[in-house]
Amino acid sequence: MRDISVLLSLLFLLLNLSLLSASSCKDKSPLRMVSGSGRFKIALFADLHYGENAWTDWGPAQDVNSDVVMSTVLDSEKPDFVVYLGDVITANNIAIQNATLYWDKAISPTRKRRIPWASVFGNHDDMYFEWPSEWFSATGIPQVNCPLSSISYSGSEPCTFRGTTRVELMKTEIANNNLAYSINGPRELWPGVSNYVLQLLSSDGTKPALLMYFLDSGGGTYPEIISYAQAQWFEKQSQLINPNSMIPEVIFWHIPSTAYSQVAPKPNSVIAKPCVGSINKESVASQEAEWGIMDILTARPSVKAVFVGHNHGLDWCCPYRSLWLCFARHTGYGGYGSWPRGARIIEVTENPFTLKSWIRMENGSTHSELVMSP
Amino acid sequence: MRDISVLLSLLFLLLNLSLLSASSCKDKSPLRMVSGSGRFKIALFADLHYGENAWTDWGPAQDVNSDVVMSTVLDSEKPDFVVYLGDVITANNIAIQNATLYWDKAISPTRKRRIPWASVFGNHDDMYFEWPSEWFSATGIPQVNCPLSSISYSGSEPCTFRGTTRVELMKTEIANNNLAYSINGPRELWPGVSNYVLQLLSSDGTKPALLMYFLDSGGGTYPEIISYAQAQWFEKQSQLINPNSMIPEVIFWHIPSTAYSQVAPKPNSVIAKPCVGSINKESVASQEAEWGIMDILTARPSVKAVFVGHNHGLDWCCPYRSLWLCFARHTGYGGYGSWPRGARIIEVTENPFTLKSWIRMENGSTHSELVMSP
Repeated sequence: MRDISVLLSLLFLLLNLSLLSASSCKDKSPLRMVSGSGRFKIALFADLHYGENAWTDWGPAQDVNSDVVMSTVLDSEKPDFVVYLGDVITANNIAIQNATLYWDKAISPTRKRRIPWASVFGNHDDMYFEWPSEWFSATGIPQVNCPLSSISYSGSEPCTFRGTTRVELMKTEIANNNLAYSINGPRELWPGVSNYVLQLLSSDGTKPALLMYFLDSGGGTYPEIISYAQAQWFEKQSQLINPNSMIPEVIFWHIPSTAYSQVAPKPNSVIAKPCVGSINKESVASQEAEWGIMDILTARPSVKAVFVGHNHGLDWCCPYRSLWLCFARHTGYGGYGSWPRGARIIEVTENPFTLKSWIRMENGSTHSELVMSP
Repeated sequence: MRDISVLLSLLFLLLNLSLLSASSCKDKSPLRMVSGSGRFKIALFADLHYGENAWTDWGPAQDVNSDVVMSTVLDSEKPDFVVYLGDVITANNIAIQNATLYWDKAISPTRKRRIPWASVFGNHDDMYFEWPSEWFSATGIPQVNCPLSSISYSGSEPCTFRGTTRVELMKTEIANNNLAYSINGPRELWPGVSNYVLQLLSSDGTKPALLMYFLDSGGGTYPEIISYAQAQWFEKQSQLINPNSMIPEVIFWHIPSTAYSQVAPKPNSVIAKPCVGSINKESVASQEAEWGIMDILTARPSVKAVFVGHNHGLDWCCPYRSLWLCFARHTGYGGYGSWPRGARIIEVTENPFTLKSWIRMENGSTHSELVMSP
């Protein structure tokens, strides 16, 4: 009887791995719980906004500050994995043809430390360039950004700075980094791109311990939405890989769904139990519409929490039906708001499964610790 | 003495023509006051907004209605020239790779009647495509707009619908139409494109009778602005061609300058003298900033009037310092607002120079007649 159970569990694992392999890179080593501790720690870097006002002194200085935040968090927490939770760059500010340069800068503190990571897109990552109004004053368009000699009316315009597409950003990240676990998701979910699932194995590598779903919540060049097609894809995928909801699941995307607005503490009020967090300075800037993802998520007991960025002035977690809705913490010096920077940390354990989270600040302090599961 | 005067005037004309030829097409026949009557009539087609919601029945039906408005105006007024005053198309609604198809439809009623025309850009003409939010619901992206087979993650994305640039729109208009007097303006005014001047000669062809300046007031892919560089270009150009302000000048662009807000009748109030018009249903949606063009224009006694579109619910003319600021009339069935459609008509005469305007409606009536000069 015991042999059959082991056999079944191995078959199940093989099925999972073959399903996952269709959408994941075959040459990446599988993610595993840490041997000995049986833990796995993830740092969420949200809203880094690299590349703001690159034509001023201010902009590049912000990116240096963001480097410091990430380095501090990585060195104090020593996470096993990093999630770049969208708005990695501010493409609408980037007056060069290819924004992958700034994306690459944003992931370099993680890469330098040989920590694997994955990314999802935010609304700013593929935005079209917005011409600064002041470039039309007497001082004119800075020659460094657009030398007159390169302006041509005869062919394509070299200085249109239209932004780099999600697909291009992702392709470059994956091609240049063997620690990047990001995946250009299924074509039928286009224009959404960062739709994929990663599996964390148990420390002995024999069974799945956690499934991490990444969804593209749009914005930028298309509406701020998780489409019906994405919701259906998640439902189908999760039922195939984890039909009995035996494996815990966590979800990452950038723009809060409308469900966040329903559970949000009143802006500027104290964050009271059952919610946990430290800043509550604005209203939830939620997606434009809800096409089914929340009902599908809450119908699965295995889905423990959703993590989003987008609102720099919010860092709370609140329960919503069967799961937790959490904001990350504004990590970058780019983007609006001057609340102290930090990063939400997630830690899972095996035997038994637990899911815990807290926020690590740039000054070294931690707060808002919360046990989400069990 | 009389001979010298004729000689001087001929030399002057030659100078003008050579200055103009640098930026105008050499094979176009010069525009002339009509022999006999000594008049020249211009119809302004503003805010046609072709190509709205092309994936519905409603959108294409609007374009047919706009065809009818233009045909009615052209057949009743029989103008000698047409100015397309921007927002010819609604590029943010056009889910095809190349929007010139819709631009071409918009100019066809004029071309069919062998009437010459010129165009300036509005803020909608090169806008980026805005994905309809409803395409992310259960019905999904219409296959006709973006067949799944054409979606590729490996190269450039064929369904990004990023809009057609001003330069491309203008190049196509000019290349395909020998009646188009539009000009891709000086490269140093880029990203502004529709910056140029056209000369109307006296009926005997011996002297200039009117200078028509076209300026690109931005919007769409860059700020809604007439730049400092454009203002300087106008000043230099006008002083070269018309140093003593002997030749009357009229100006066309799309988005009202901030000066319009200063003279605007209170929204929804009766339009009282000295203003003349029939609808006053909204606030002036003016440019973002003023970089000198208004001071330069009002310093020239030869500048008689500025004509803009953009606000569909306004059709008035009001005096501003030494000149008139006029709205055209919403001509297209595309774009917001359901006020009856029409077109502002301008008529100039030689010996003596006069400038008159009125509005011709789709139902055949006229109103708001105004003598602007002398």
